[in-house]
Amino acid sequence: MQSSSRGRRLDAVSGPFTPRTPRVVAARRLQRRRDREAAGRFLAEGPQAVREALARPGVVAELFGTPAALDRHAGLAADAARADVPVSEVTDEALAALAETVAPQGLVAVCRHLDVPLERALAGGPRLVAVLAEIRDPGNAGTVLRTADAAGAGAVVFAGDAVDPYNGKCVRASAGSLFHVDVVRAPDPVDVVAALRAAGLAVFATTGYGEDDLDDLADAGRLAAPTAWLFGSEAHGLPEELTAAADARVRVPLHGRAESLNLAAAAAVCLYASARAQR
Amino acid sequence: MQSSSRGRRLDAVSGPFTPRTPRVVAARRLQRRRDREAAGRFLAEGPQAVREALARPGVVAELFGTPAALDRHAGLAADAARADVPVSEVTDEALAALAETVAPQGLVAVCRHLDVPLERALAGGPRLVAVLAEIRDPGNAGTVLRTADAAGAGAVVFAGDAVDPYNGKCVRASAGSLFHVDVVRAPDPVDVVAALRAAGLAVFATTGYGEDDLDDLADAGRLAAPTAWLFGSEAHGLPEELTAAADARVRVPLHGRAESLNLAAAAAVCLYASARAQR
Repeated sequence: MQSSSRGRRLDAVSGPFTPRTPRVVAARRLQRRRDREAAGRFLAEGPQAVREALARPGVVAELFGTPAALDRHAGLAADAARADVPVSEVTDEALAALAETVAPQGLVAVCRHLDVPLERALAGGPRLVAVLAEIRDPGNAGTVLRTADAAGAGAVVFAGDAVDPYNGKCVRASAGSLFHVDVVRAPDPVDVVAALRAAGLAVFATTGYGEDDLDDLADAGRLAAPTAWLFGSEAHGLPEELTAAADARVRVPLHGRAESLNLAAAAAVCLYASARAQR
Repeated sequence: MQSSSRGRRLDAVSGPFTPRTPRVVAARRLQRRRDREAAGRFLAEGPQAVREALARPGVVAELFGTPAALDRHAGLAADAARADVPVSEVTDEALAALAETVAPQGLVAVCRHLDVPLERALAGGPRLVAVLAEIRDPGNAGTVLRTADAAGAGAVVFAGDAVDPYNGKCVRASAGSLFHVDVVRAPDPVDVVAALRAAGLAVFATTGYGEDDLDDLADAGRLAAPTAWLFGSEAHGLPEELTAAADARVRVPLHGRAESLNLAAAAAVCLYASARAQR
């Protein structure tokens, strides 16, 4: 290996990495959950995600890009090089193999897992927390992560048998928010509720059958306190032991004839109701 | 054709319809937009959509179901028969050909287009209207339609070069709400804004660069009036001529570090802010 004239590592003999180059082969394995777990690493694709990842010191382990993309995003490549992150040119074919989208925009970063223990996230005293309990759909989980970030949440907890936050679709749906908030992975959602309450947060479970209407909670001033919201899957809702453990079971009012809201919409309404009440 | 013992039409010779039965072939063509336009019909699949469609007199033109599904949902089949809607048994293969999902639950209805002119929708005096301007993603459009219904909107306008509301993915994402609210298709979004204002609605354009913060509008009492919200596509936002024509350009506050919200989340926050202010 040597540095190219543009400061990027190139294999002196064979040029940009191909789909068969061992480092590309190794990175591509991170598309599978068990390989992500084994390596403690995941992939983030596209310039926006790479920029957000580079903004977190120590997160990016390696950056791959096509020559055209590394030219187009020379600032990102320079940021990576400054942070001692290896930057490697790859062929269009290799990039396509690493990326999971049709138009990956030429950049893929190998990132180190960045979740923190729940205790650490709570030590920061977040006033708004979102808990994704047993949510298996990666697009839904990533969207709620993004919405929680926008609403000012300090932490997002993936609890129980939830999707891997490092799943490629979740990373993409989060639109960079995976790198903004404290992400927590916790195996037991009931323990999470106990820890949240011990940290002084009111814990509200969202359910279509909740006895408290969101607007009534807001009117009563109950949304102004530090709050954690529990969200379940669209198909199955929250496990009963979790709704029972919460301080309140809250329904988003349905004013029309829709039977329910989808998860992203319900989470947005609840999290923004808290954000407004807390300000 | 004759009636079976269960009151369903069966071809006396060949049994349930197959993928090659002309009526199945004709219905399947409704998966394509130009055939939907030519026929003025579309497909709705699954028991929930069929139930909602049957609740609108005159909408369902024909119901197909596997024998197992028609038994499982005998009440729906009876409702259809009572409304003089032809009910036909189809093979699993024919059902799979008609349905666009992997698990279609055995029922597909051919429905008549049900959109109404904007003037008619406005004649009902809706206090909340959602306008989807140039939104091409059918899943996003259907989700906003569902959220608008939940928030109590009386009409949803598909304006300009927006997705066909009868696109299968949009119908499914709406989760029945297509059959609940007045759906309007209008070619020119600027004309829509003019008509909305003439009808006495305040017209708010959602944009990340809006000069009015949603919370400030709420605090100022400006959300209590009858309101129409304009939503643009996630990729391109609203056309400038539309943001200029609106009464206000409104941004959803971003409290964290997310650069934006996705469309479904932003629409949910805006529509529910109106719903809360109007009550």
